[in-house]
Amino acid sequence: AMDGAPPPPSPTGLSVYVAISQLLGLTLLATTGAWLGRYRGGVAWHSPLQFNAHPLCMVLGMVFLQGDALLVYRVFRHEAKRSTKALHALLHGLALVIALVGIIAVFESHRTKGIPDMYSLHSWCGMATFVLYLLQWFLGCGFFMFPGASFLLRGWYKPQHIFFGITLFILSITSCLLGITEMLLFKISDSYSHFVPEGILANTLGVLLVTFGLVVGYVLTREEWKRPPLAEELALSMDFKTLTEGESPSGGSQ
Amino acid sequence: AMDGAPPPPSPTGLSVYVAISQLLGLTLLATTGAWLGRYRGGVAWHSPLQFNAHPLCMVLGMVFLQGDALLVYRVFRHEAKRSTKALHALLHGLALVIALVGIIAVFESHRTKGIPDMYSLHSWCGMATFVLYLLQWFLGCGFFMFPGASFLLRGWYKPQHIFFGITLFILSITSCLLGITEMLLFKISDSYSHFVPEGILANTLGVLLVTFGLVVGYVLTREEWKRPPLAEELALSMDFKTLTEGESPSGGSQ
Repeated sequence: AMDGAPPPPSPTGLSVYVAISQLLGLTLLATTGAWLGRYRGGVAWHSPLQFNAHPLCMVLGMVFLQGDALLVYRVFRHEAKRSTKALHALLHGLALVIALVGIIAVFESHRTKGIPDMYSLHSWCGMATFVLYLLQWFLGCGFFMFPGASFLLRGWYKPQHIFFGITLFILSITSCLLGITEMLLFKISDSYSHFVPEGILANTLGVLLVTFGLVVGYVLTREEWKRPPLAEELALSMDFKTLTEGESPSGGSQ
Repeated sequence: AMDGAPPPPSPTGLSVYVAISQLLGLTLLATTGAWLGRYRGGVAWHSPLQFNAHPLCMVLGMVFLQGDALLVYRVFRHEAKRSTKALHALLHGLALVIALVGIIAVFESHRTKGIPDMYSLHSWCGMATFVLYLLQWFLGCGFFMFPGASFLLRGWYKPQHIFFGITLFILSITSCLLGITEMLLFKISDSYSHFVPEGILANTLGVLLVTFGLVVGYVLTREEWKRPPLAEELALSMDFKTLTEGESPSGGSQ
Protein backbone atom coordinates (compact mmCIF):
# COMPACT_ATOMS: atom_id res chain seq x y z
CA ALA A 1 0.00 0.00 0.00
CA MET A 2 2.97 2.34 0.40
CA ASP A 3 3.60 2.63 -3.37
CA GLY A 4 0.07 3.95 -3.96
CA ALA A 5 -1.28 0.74 -5.51
CA PRO A 6 -4.60 -0.40 -3.99
CA PRO A 7 -4.01 -3.25 -1.49
CA PRO A 8 -5.36 -6.68 -2.53
CA PRO A 9 -8.83 -7.24 -1.04
CA SER A 10 -9.28 -9.48 2.00
CA PRO A 11 -11.19 -12.73 1.42
CA THR A 12 -14.93 -11.97 1.74
CA GLY A 13 -15.57 -14.78 4.23
CA LEU A 14 -12.81 -13.44 6.48
CA SER A 15 -14.37 -9.95 6.63
CA VAL A 16 -17.76 -11.43 7.51
CA TYR A 17 -16.33 -13.57 10.32
CA VAL A 18 -14.27 -10.66 11.69
CA ALA A 19 -17.37 -8.43 11.67
CA ILE A 20 -19.33 -11.13 13.54
CA SER A 21 -16.51 -11.47 16.09
CA GLN A 22 -16.60 -7.71 16.80
CA LEU A 23 -20.39 -7.70 17.16
CA LEU A 24 -20.07 -10.65 19.55
CA GLY A 25 -17.31 -8.86 21.48
CA LEU A 26 -19.48 -5.78 21.98
CA THR A 27 -22.43 -8.01 22.94
CA LEU A 28 -20.20 -9.67 25.57
CA LEU A 29 -19.46 -6.28 27.15
CA ALA A 30 -23.12 -5.21 26.98
CA THR A 31 -24.29 -8.48 28.53
CA THR A 32 -21.71 -8.28 31.33
CA GLY A 33 -22.73 -4.66 31.94
CA ALA A 34 -26.42 -5.58 31.94
CA TRP A 35 -25.85 -8.41 34.45
CA LEU A 36 -23.81 -6.23 36.82
CA GLY A 37 -25.97 -3.13 36.34
CA ARG A 38 -29.41 -4.70 36.42
CA TYR A 39 -28.91 -7.45 39.05
CA ARG A 40 -25.67 -6.71 40.96
CA GLY A 41 -25.99 -3.00 41.80
CA GLY A 42 -23.52 -1.69 39.23
CA VAL A 43 -19.78 -1.16 39.36
CA ALA A 44 -17.79 1.20 41.62
CA TRP A 45 -14.24 1.22 43.02
CA HIS A 46 -13.89 2.10 46.75
CA SER A 47 -17.28 0.61 47.67
CA PRO A 48 -18.96 -2.75 48.33
CA LEU A 49 -19.44 -2.86 44.54
CA GLN A 50 -15.69 -3.05 43.94
CA PHE A 51 -15.93 -6.79 43.27
CA ASN A 52 -18.09 -6.08 40.21
CA ALA A 53 -15.13 -4.41 38.48
CA HIS A 54 -13.58 -7.92 38.35
CA PRO A 55 -15.88 -9.63 35.80
CA LEU A 56 -16.10 -6.46 33.68
CA CYS A 57 -12.31 -6.01 33.46
CA MET A 58 -11.65 -9.70 32.81
CA VAL A 59 -14.20 -9.95 29.97
CA LEU A 60 -12.90 -6.71 28.42
CA GLY A 61 -9.17 -7.46 28.85
CA MET A 62 -8.69 -11.23 28.85
CA VAL A 63 -11.38 -12.00 26.27
CA PHE A 64 -12.32 -9.09 23.97
CA LEU A 65 -8.93 -7.32 23.75
CA GLN A 66 -6.91 -10.54 23.84
CA GLY A 67 -9.10 -11.94 21.04
CA ASP A 68 -8.66 -8.80 18.96
CA ALA A 69 -4.89 -8.88 19.50
CA LEU A 70 -4.89 -12.40 18.02
CA LEU A 71 -6.90 -11.23 15.01
CA VAL A 72 -4.64 -8.35 13.89
CA TYR A 73 -2.49 -10.55 11.59
CA ARG A 74 -5.68 -11.60 9.76
CA VAL A 75 -7.35 -8.17 9.69
CA PHE A 76 -4.27 -6.17 8.63
CA ARG A 77 -3.00 -8.92 6.37
CA HIS A 78 -1.45 -6.60 3.78
CA GLU A 79 0.19 -4.08 6.13
CA ALA A 80 3.89 -4.17 6.95
CA LYS A 81 4.66 -6.87 9.54
CA ARG A 82 6.47 -4.30 11.72
CA SER A 83 3.34 -2.20 12.36
CA THR A 84 1.02 -5.20 12.74
CA LYS A 85 3.40 -6.71 15.28
CA ALA A 86 3.45 -3.43 17.25
CA LEU A 87 -0.36 -3.36 17.33
CA HIS A 88 -0.43 -7.04 18.43
CA ALA A 89 1.94 -6.28 21.35
CA LEU A 90 0.06 -3.08 22.24
CA LEU A 91 -3.38 -4.72 22.41
CA HIS A 92 -2.01 -7.57 24.55
CA GLY A 93 -0.31 -4.98 26.79
CA LEU A 94 -3.61 -3.09 27.20
CA ALA A 95 -5.39 -6.38 27.94
CA LEU A 96 -2.80 -7.15 30.64
CA VAL A 97 -3.22 -3.74 32.33
CA ILE A 98 -7.03 -4.00 32.36
CA ALA A 99 -6.83 -7.59 33.66
CA LEU A 100 -4.48 -6.44 36.42
CA VAL A 101 -7.06 -3.82 37.50
CA GLY A 102 -9.67 -6.61 37.54
CA ILE A 103 -7.43 -8.80 39.71
CA ILE A 104 -6.72 -5.96 42.15
CA ALA A 105 -10.50 -5.40 42.38
CA VAL A 106 -11.17 -8.96 43.58
CA PHE A 107 -8.23 -9.07 46.04
CA GLU A 108 -9.18 -5.68 47.60
CA SER A 109 -12.84 -6.70 47.75
CA HIS A 110 -11.91 -9.99 49.47
CA ARG A 111 -9.70 -8.15 51.98
CA THR A 112 -12.51 -5.69 52.80
CA LYS A 113 -15.05 -8.49 53.30
CA GLY A 114 -12.65 -10.95 54.96
CA ILE A 115 -13.02 -13.60 52.24
CA PRO A 116 -10.01 -15.94 51.69
CA ASP A 117 -8.15 -15.78 48.36
CA MET A 118 -7.11 -18.40 45.81
CA TYR A 119 -9.00 -21.44 47.10
CA SER A 120 -11.31 -22.07 44.13
CA LEU A 121 -10.70 -23.79 40.78
CA HIS A 122 -11.69 -20.48 39.12
CA SER A 123 -8.92 -18.64 40.99
CA TRP A 124 -6.34 -21.35 40.22
CA CYS A 125 -7.15 -21.40 36.49
CA GLY A 126 -7.56 -17.63 36.25
CA MET A 127 -4.34 -16.77 38.09
CA ALA A 128 -2.32 -19.38 36.15
CA THR A 129 -3.72 -17.98 32.90
CA PHE A 130 -2.86 -14.38 33.85
CA VAL A 131 0.70 -15.21 34.97
CA LEU A 132 1.40 -17.30 31.85
CA TYR A 133 -0.17 -14.59 29.66
CA LEU A 134 2.20 -12.01 31.18
CA LEU A 135 5.14 -14.40 30.65
CA GLN A 136 4.09 -15.02 27.04
CA TRP A 137 3.93 -11.24 26.46
CA PHE A 138 7.49 -10.77 27.77
CA LEU A 139 8.76 -13.73 25.72
CA GLY A 140 7.00 -12.40 22.61
CA CYS A 141 8.60 -8.98 23.07
CA GLY A 142 12.01 -10.57 23.65
CA PHE A 143 11.92 -12.88 20.62
CA PHE A 144 10.07 -10.74 18.08
CA MET A 145 10.69 -7.06 19.01
CA PHE A 146 14.28 -7.30 20.28
CA PRO A 147 16.50 -6.78 17.21
CA GLY A 148 19.18 -9.17 18.50
CA ALA A 149 17.06 -12.34 18.19
CA SER A 150 18.15 -14.28 15.14
CA PHE A 151 15.82 -15.55 12.38
CA LEU A 152 16.60 -19.11 13.49
CA LEU A 153 15.59 -18.40 17.09
CA ARG A 154 12.40 -16.62 15.95
CA GLY A 155 11.60 -19.49 13.59
CA TRP A 156 11.93 -21.97 16.45
CA TYR A 157 9.83 -19.93 18.91
CA LYS A 158 7.05 -18.82 16.55
CA PRO A 159 5.01 -22.07 16.50
CA GLN A 160 5.26 -22.29 20.32
CA HIS A 161 4.13 -18.65 20.63
CA ILE A 162 1.10 -19.34 18.42
CA PHE A 163 0.15 -22.59 20.19
CA PHE A 164 0.41 -21.11 23.69
CA GLY A 165 -1.24 -17.88 22.55
CA ILE A 166 -4.37 -19.72 21.40
CA THR A 167 -4.22 -21.95 24.51
CA LEU A 168 -4.14 -18.92 26.83
CA PHE A 169 -7.09 -17.37 24.98
CA ILE A 170 -9.09 -20.60 25.48
CA LEU A 171 -8.04 -20.78 29.16
CA SER A 172 -9.13 -17.15 29.63
CA ILE A 173 -12.62 -17.96 28.35
CA THR A 174 -12.74 -21.13 30.47
CA SER A 175 -11.78 -19.11 33.57
CA CYS A 176 -14.62 -16.66 32.82
CA LEU A 177 -17.14 -19.51 32.61
CA LEU A 178 -15.88 -20.84 35.97
CA GLY A 179 -16.23 -17.34 37.42
CA ILE A 180 -19.81 -17.00 36.17
CA THR A 181 -20.72 -20.39 37.71
CA GLU A 182 -19.10 -19.44 41.03
CA MET A 183 -20.78 -16.05 41.17
CA LEU A 184 -24.24 -17.50 40.42
CA LEU A 185 -23.86 -20.20 43.09
CA PHE A 186 -22.67 -17.60 45.63
CA LYS A 187 -25.34 -14.99 44.85
CA ILE A 188 -28.49 -16.81 43.69
CA SER A 189 -27.98 -20.43 44.82
CA ASP A 190 -31.59 -20.59 46.07
CA SER A 191 -33.26 -19.32 42.90
CA TYR A 192 -30.81 -20.43 40.16
CA SER A 193 -32.59 -23.76 39.68
CA HIS A 194 -35.92 -21.95 39.10
CA PHE A 195 -34.68 -20.43 35.83
CA VAL A 196 -34.74 -16.86 37.19
CA PRO A 197 -33.85 -14.11 34.66
CA GLU A 198 -30.45 -13.41 36.25
CA GLY A 199 -29.44 -17.06 35.86
CA ILE A 200 -30.59 -17.18 32.25
CA LEU A 201 -28.74 -13.90 31.50
CA ALA A 202 -25.49 -15.08 33.07
CA ASN A 203 -25.72 -18.49 31.34
CA THR A 204 -26.27 -16.61 28.06
CA LEU A 205 -23.12 -14.60 28.76
CA GLY A 206 -21.29 -17.93 29.11
CA VAL A 207 -22.66 -19.16 25.77
CA LEU A 208 -21.67 -15.84 24.13
CA LEU A 209 -18.12 -16.18 25.50
CA VAL A 210 -17.86 -19.67 23.98
CA THR A 211 -19.26 -18.39 20.66
CA PHE A 212 -16.75 -15.50 20.59
CA GLY A 213 -13.92 -17.99 21.19
CA LEU A 214 -15.28 -20.27 18.47
CA VAL A 215 -15.44 -17.49 15.84
CA VAL A 216 -11.99 -16.09 16.73
CA GLY A 217 -10.54 -19.63 16.76
CA TYR A 218 -12.06 -20.40 13.36
CA VAL A 219 -10.61 -17.21 11.82
CA LEU A 220 -7.17 -17.94 13.32
CA THR A 221 -6.89 -21.57 12.25
CA ARG A 222 -8.38 -21.44 8.75
CA GLU A 223 -5.47 -22.18 6.41
CA GLU A 224 -6.53 -19.90 3.50
CA TRP A 225 -6.92 -16.92 5.82
CA LYS A 226 -3.40 -16.98 7.22
CA ARG A 227 -1.40 -13.83 6.57
CA PRO A 228 0.44 -14.18 3.24
CA PRO A 229 4.09 -13.01 3.49
CA LEU A 230 4.71 -9.73 1.64
CA ALA A 231 6.99 -9.88 -1.42
CA GLU A 232 9.90 -8.28 0.45
CA GLU A 233 9.50 -10.66 3.42
CA LEU A 234 9.63 -13.67 1.08
CA ALA A 235 12.76 -12.34 -0.64
CA LEU A 236 14.38 -11.82 2.76
CA SER A 237 13.60 -15.32 4.04
CA MET A 238 14.74 -16.87 0.74
CA ASP A 239 18.07 -15.06 0.98
CA PHE A 240 18.36 -16.27 4.53
CA LYS A 241 17.55 -19.87 3.62
CA THR A 242 20.14 -19.73 0.85
CA LEU A 243 22.72 -18.52 3.34
CA THR A 244 22.01 -21.03 6.08
CA GLU A 245 20.83 -24.14 4.23
CA GLY A 246 22.47 -23.73 0.85
CA GLU A 247 19.06 -24.13 -0.83
CA SER A 248 18.17 -22.61 -4.16
CA PRO A 249 15.87 -19.60 -3.63
CA SER A 250 13.65 -20.89 -6.44
CA GLY A 251 13.03 -24.26 -4.75
CA GLY A 252 9.30 -24.93 -5.20
CA SER A 253 8.41 -27.09 -2.20
CA GLN A 254 8.76 -24.51 0.62
CA ALA B 1 4.15 -52.77 7.30
CA MET B 2 2.20 -55.28 5.19
CA ASP B 3 5.14 -56.05 2.89
CA GLY B 4 7.30 -57.16 5.82
CA ALA B 5 9.56 -54.10 5.81
CA PRO B 6 9.98 -52.53 9.27
CA PRO B 7 7.75 -49.44 9.57
CA PRO B 8 9.58 -46.11 9.78
CA PRO B 9 10.00 -45.07 13.41
CA SER B 10 7.75 -42.40 14.95
CA PRO B 11 9.44 -39.13 15.90
CA THR B 12 10.91 -39.54 19.41
CA GLY B 13 9.28 -36.39 20.77
CA LEU B 14 5.89 -37.64 19.62
CA SER B 15 6.26 -40.94 21.51
CA VAL B 16 7.24 -39.09 24.69
CA TYR B 17 4.26 -36.72 24.49
CA VAL B 18 1.85 -39.58 23.73
CA ALA B 19 3.21 -41.54 26.72
CA ILE B 20 2.73 -38.48 28.96
CA SER B 21 -0.83 -38.05 27.67
CA GLN B 22 -1.68 -41.65 28.57
CA LEU B 23 -0.15 -41.33 32.05
CA LEU B 24 -2.16 -38.13 32.52
CA GLY B 25 -5.32 -39.86 31.27
CA LEU B 26 -4.93 -42.66 33.79
CA THR B 27 -4.17 -40.11 36.53
CA LEU B 28 -7.42 -38.31 35.62
CA LEU B 29 -9.42 -41.50 36.17
CA ALA B 30 -7.57 -42.30 39.41
CA THR B 31 -8.10 -38.76 40.74
CA THR B 32 -11.81 -38.80 39.85
CA GLY B 33 -12.12 -42.23 41.48
CA ALA B 34 -10.26 -41.02 44.58
CA TRP B 35 -12.51 -37.96 44.91
CA LEU B 36 -15.74 -39.97 44.56
CA GLY B 37 -14.49 -42.93 46.60
CA ARG B 38 -12.79 -41.08 49.42
CA TYR B 39 -15.11 -38.07 49.88
CA ARG B 40 -18.42 -38.82 48.06
CA GLY B 41 -19.26 -42.36 49.23
CA GLY B 42 -18.32 -44.17 46.01
CA VAL B 43 -20.31 -44.98 42.88
CA ALA B 44 -23.41 -47.18 42.53
CA TRP B 45 -26.35 -47.30 40.12
CA HIS B 46 -29.85 -47.72 41.68
CA SER B 47 -28.90 -45.85 44.87
CA PRO B 48 -28.41 -42.34 46.23
CA LEU B 49 -24.85 -42.67 44.84
CA GLN B 50 -26.14 -42.84 41.25
CA PHE B 51 -25.14 -39.21 40.66
CA ASN B 52 -21.48 -40.13 41.18
CA ALA B 53 -21.54 -42.22 37.99
CA HIS B 54 -21.92 -38.90 36.13
CA PRO B 55 -18.46 -37.35 36.71
CA LEU B 56 -16.73 -40.75 36.31
CA CYS B 57 -18.42 -41.51 32.95
CA MET B 58 -17.89 -37.99 31.61
CA VAL B 59 -14.17 -37.92 32.45
CA LEU B 60 -13.69 -41.42 30.99
CA GLY B 61 -15.81 -40.92 27.85
CA MET B 62 -15.76 -37.23 26.96
CA VAL B 63 -12.14 -36.60 27.98
CA PHE B 64 -9.91 -39.70 28.06
CA LEU B 65 -11.49 -41.74 25.24
CA GLN B 66 -12.32 -38.69 23.12
CA GLY B 67 -8.72 -37.50 23.49
CA ASP B 68 -7.34 -40.91 22.55
CA ALA B 69 -9.65 -41.06 19.52
CA LEU B 70 -8.09 -37.76 18.34
CA LEU B 71 -4.58 -39.17 18.82
CA VAL B 72 -4.93 -42.32 16.68
CA TYR B 73 -3.82 -40.62 13.45
CA ARG B 74 -0.59 -39.58 15.21
CA VAL B 75 0.03 -42.85 17.09
CA PHE B 76 -0.71 -45.20 14.16
CA ARG B 77 0.85 -42.87 11.62
CA HIS B 78 2.18 -45.63 9.35
CA GLU B 79 -0.85 -47.94 9.39
CA ALA B 80 -3.36 -48.04 6.53
CA LYS B 81 -5.79 -45.09 6.73
CA ARG B 82 -8.76 -47.48 6.53
CA SER B 83 -7.96 -49.23 9.83
CA THR B 84 -6.92 -46.03 11.64
CA LYS B 85 -10.18 -44.40 10.58
CA ALA B 86 -12.17 -47.38 11.89
CA LEU B 87 -10.38 -47.15 15.26
CA HIS B 88 -11.02 -43.36 15.37
CA ALA B 89 -14.77 -43.92 14.80
CA LEU B 90 -14.88 -46.82 17.27
CA LEU B 91 -13.23 -44.91 20.12
CA HIS B 92 -15.54 -41.91 19.58
CA GLY B 93 -18.51 -44.31 19.50
CA LEU B 94 -17.42 -45.88 22.80
CA ALA B 95 -16.94 -42.39 24.29
CA LEU B 96 -20.48 -41.48 23.22
CA VAL B 97 -22.02 -44.60 24.81
CA ILE B 98 -20.17 -44.04 28.11
CA ALA B 99 -21.13 -40.35 28.10
CA LEU B 100 -24.76 -41.32 27.51
CA VAL B 101 -24.64 -43.55 30.61
CA GLY B 102 -23.21 -40.59 32.53
CA ILE B 103 -26.02 -38.31 31.32
CA ILE B 104 -28.71 -40.87 32.23
CA ALA B 105 -27.12 -41.08 35.71
CA VAL B 106 -27.56 -37.37 36.40
CA PHE B 107 -31.12 -37.16 34.99
CA GLU B 108 -32.28 -40.23 36.99
CA SER B 109 -30.55 -38.93 40.12
CA HIS B 110 -32.25 -35.52 39.69
CA ARG B 111 -35.65 -37.18 39.21
CA THR B 112 -35.20 -39.29 42.35
CA LYS B 113 -34.17 -36.27 44.42
CA GLY B 114 -36.60 -33.80 42.80
CA ILE B 115 -33.86 -31.51 41.49
CA PRO B 116 -34.67 -29.50 38.31
CA ASP B 117 -32.66 -30.24 35.14
CA MET B 118 -30.77 -28.07 32.68
CA TYR B 119 -30.74 -24.74 34.53
CA SER B 120 -26.98 -24.31 35.06
CA LEU B 121 -24.23 -23.11 32.73
CA HIS B 122 -22.56 -26.52 33.23
CA SER B 123 -25.66 -28.31 31.96
CA TRP B 124 -26.04 -25.93 28.99
CA CYS B 125 -22.40 -26.30 27.93
CA GLY B 126 -22.27 -30.01 28.64
CA MET B 127 -25.50 -30.89 26.82
CA ALA B 128 -24.59 -28.71 23.81
CA THR B 129 -21.19 -30.42 23.68
CA PHE B 130 -22.71 -33.92 23.84
CA VAL B 131 -25.36 -33.22 21.16
CA LEU B 132 -22.82 -31.61 18.80
CA TYR B 133 -20.36 -34.46 19.47
CA LEU B 134 -23.03 -36.99 18.48
CA LEU B 135 -23.82 -34.93 15.36
CA GLN B 136 -20.10 -34.70 14.47
CA TRP B 137 -19.84 -38.50 14.82
CA PHE B 138 -22.73 -39.07 12.40
CA LEU B 139 -21.33 -36.51 9.95
CA GLY B 140 -17.88 -38.10 10.18
CA CYS B 141 -19.31 -41.56 9.44
CA GLY B 142 -21.36 -40.16 6.55
CA PHE B 143 -18.51 -38.27 4.90
CA PHE B 144 -15.58 -40.58 5.58
CA MET B 145 -16.96 -44.13 5.96
CA PHE B 146 -19.81 -44.03 3.42
CA PRO B 147 -18.26 -45.10 0.11
CA GLY B 148 -20.51 -42.78 -1.94
CA ALA B 149 -18.95 -39.53 -0.65
CA SER B 150 -16.68 -38.08 -3.32
CA PHE B 151 -13.05 -37.04 -2.76
CA LEU B 152 -14.07 -33.43 -3.39
CA LEU B 153 -16.78 -33.55 -0.70
CA ARG B 154 -14.39 -35.20 1.77
CA GLY B 155 -11.72 -32.63 0.99
CA TRP B 156 -14.17 -29.82 1.73
CA TYR B 157 -15.46 -31.35 4.98
CA LYS B 158 -12.14 -32.54 6.44
CA PRO B 159 -10.85 -29.18 7.78
CA GLN B 160 -14.28 -28.47 9.34
CA HIS B 161 -14.28 -31.95 10.95
CA ILE B 162 -10.83 -31.32 12.45
CA PHE B 163 -11.66 -27.80 13.71
CA PHE B 164 -14.95 -28.83 15.31
CA GLY B 165 -13.39 -32.05 16.63
CA ILE B 166 -10.73 -30.13 18.57
CA THR B 167 -13.34 -27.54 19.62
CA LEU B 168 -15.63 -30.24 21.04
CA PHE B 169 -12.70 -31.78 22.94
CA ILE B 170 -11.92 -28.37 24.50
CA LEU B 171 -15.61 -27.80 25.30
CA SER B 172 -15.76 -31.24 26.95
CA ILE B 173 -12.91 -30.33 29.28
CA THR B 174 -14.45 -26.91 29.97
CA SER B 175 -17.76 -28.58 30.87
CA CYS B 176 -15.92 -30.89 33.30
CA LEU B 177 -14.31 -27.89 35.03
CA LEU B 178 -17.74 -26.24 35.34
CA GLY B 179 -19.12 -29.48 36.78
CA ILE B 180 -16.29 -29.70 39.35
CA THR B 181 -16.93 -26.09 40.44
CA GLU B 182 -20.70 -26.71 40.73
CA MET B 183 -20.25 -29.93 42.69
CA LEU B 184 -17.80 -28.32 45.15
CA LEU B 185 -20.11 -25.33 45.74
CA PHE B 186 -23.11 -27.66 46.26
CA LYS B 187 -21.33 -30.14 48.54
CA ILE B 188 -18.65 -28.25 50.48
CA SER B 189 -19.60 -24.57 50.11
CA ASP B 190 -18.93 -23.98 53.82
CA SER B 191 -15.45 -25.52 53.95
CA TYR B 192 -14.18 -24.97 50.37
CA SER B 193 -12.64 -21.59 51.28
CA HIS B 194 -10.67 -23.20 54.12
CA PHE B 195 -8.53 -25.23 51.69
CA VAL B 196 -9.95 -28.58 52.85
CA PRO B 197 -8.39 -31.68 51.23
CA GLU B 198 -11.48 -32.43 49.12
CA GLY B 199 -11.36 -28.96 47.59
CA ILE B 200 -7.64 -29.22 46.84
CA LEU B 201 -8.12 -32.69 45.31
CA ALA B 202 -11.00 -31.57 43.06
CA ASN B 203 -9.10 -28.41 42.00
CA THR B 204 -6.13 -30.66 41.18
CA LEU B 205 -8.43 -32.80 39.03
CA GLY B 206 -9.36 -29.60 37.18
CA VAL B 207 -5.69 -28.72 36.63
CA LEU B 208 -4.98 -32.28 35.41
CA LEU B 209 -7.89 -32.04 32.94
CA VAL B 210 -6.43 -28.81 31.54
CA THR B 211 -2.96 -30.40 31.33
CA PHE B 212 -4.33 -33.46 29.49
CA GLY B 213 -6.04 -31.14 26.99
CA LEU B 214 -2.83 -29.15 26.59
CA VAL B 215 -0.68 -32.22 25.85
CA VAL B 216 -3.23 -33.74 23.43
CA GLY B 217 -3.70 -30.36 21.73
CA TYR B 218 0.06 -29.92 21.33
CA VAL B 219 0.46 -33.39 19.75
CA LEU B 220 -2.47 -32.74 17.38
CA THR B 221 -1.41 -29.32 16.15
CA ARG B 222 2.36 -29.77 15.79
CA GLU B 223 3.01 -29.57 12.07
CA GLU B 224 5.90 -32.12 11.90
CA TRP B 225 3.85 -34.75 13.73
CA LYS B 226 0.91 -34.77 11.31
CA ARG B 227 0.28 -38.14 9.67
CA PRO B 228 2.30 -38.38 6.43
CA PRO B 229 0.24 -39.81 3.55
CA LEU B 230 1.30 -43.36 2.59
CA ALA B 231 2.85 -43.82 -0.86
CA GLU B 232 -0.32 -45.41 -2.27
CA GLU B 233 -2.54 -42.63 -0.87
CA LEU B 234 -0.35 -40.00 -2.53
CA ALA B 235 -0.49 -41.82 -5.86
CA LEU B 236 -4.28 -42.06 -5.58
CA SER B 237 -4.75 -38.37 -4.80
CA MET B 238 -2.35 -37.41 -7.62
CA ASP B 239 -4.35 -39.49 -10.11
CA PHE B 240 -7.49 -37.86 -8.83
CA LYS B 241 -6.07 -34.35 -9.11
CA THR B 242 -4.93 -35.12 -12.67
CA LEU B 243 -8.44 -36.26 -13.54
CA THR B 244 -10.29 -33.33 -11.99
CA GLU B 245 -7.92 -30.39 -12.32
CA GLY B 246 -5.79 -31.41 -15.27
CA GLU B 247 -2.63 -30.98 -13.15
CA SER B 248 0.59 -32.82 -13.79
CA PRO B 249 1.07 -35.62 -11.22
CA SER B 250 4.68 -34.53 -10.86
CA GLY B 251 3.76 -30.98 -9.76
CA GLY B 252 6.08 -30.25 -6.85
CA SER B 253 4.13 -27.76 -4.73
CA GLN B 254 1.35 -30.04 -3.42
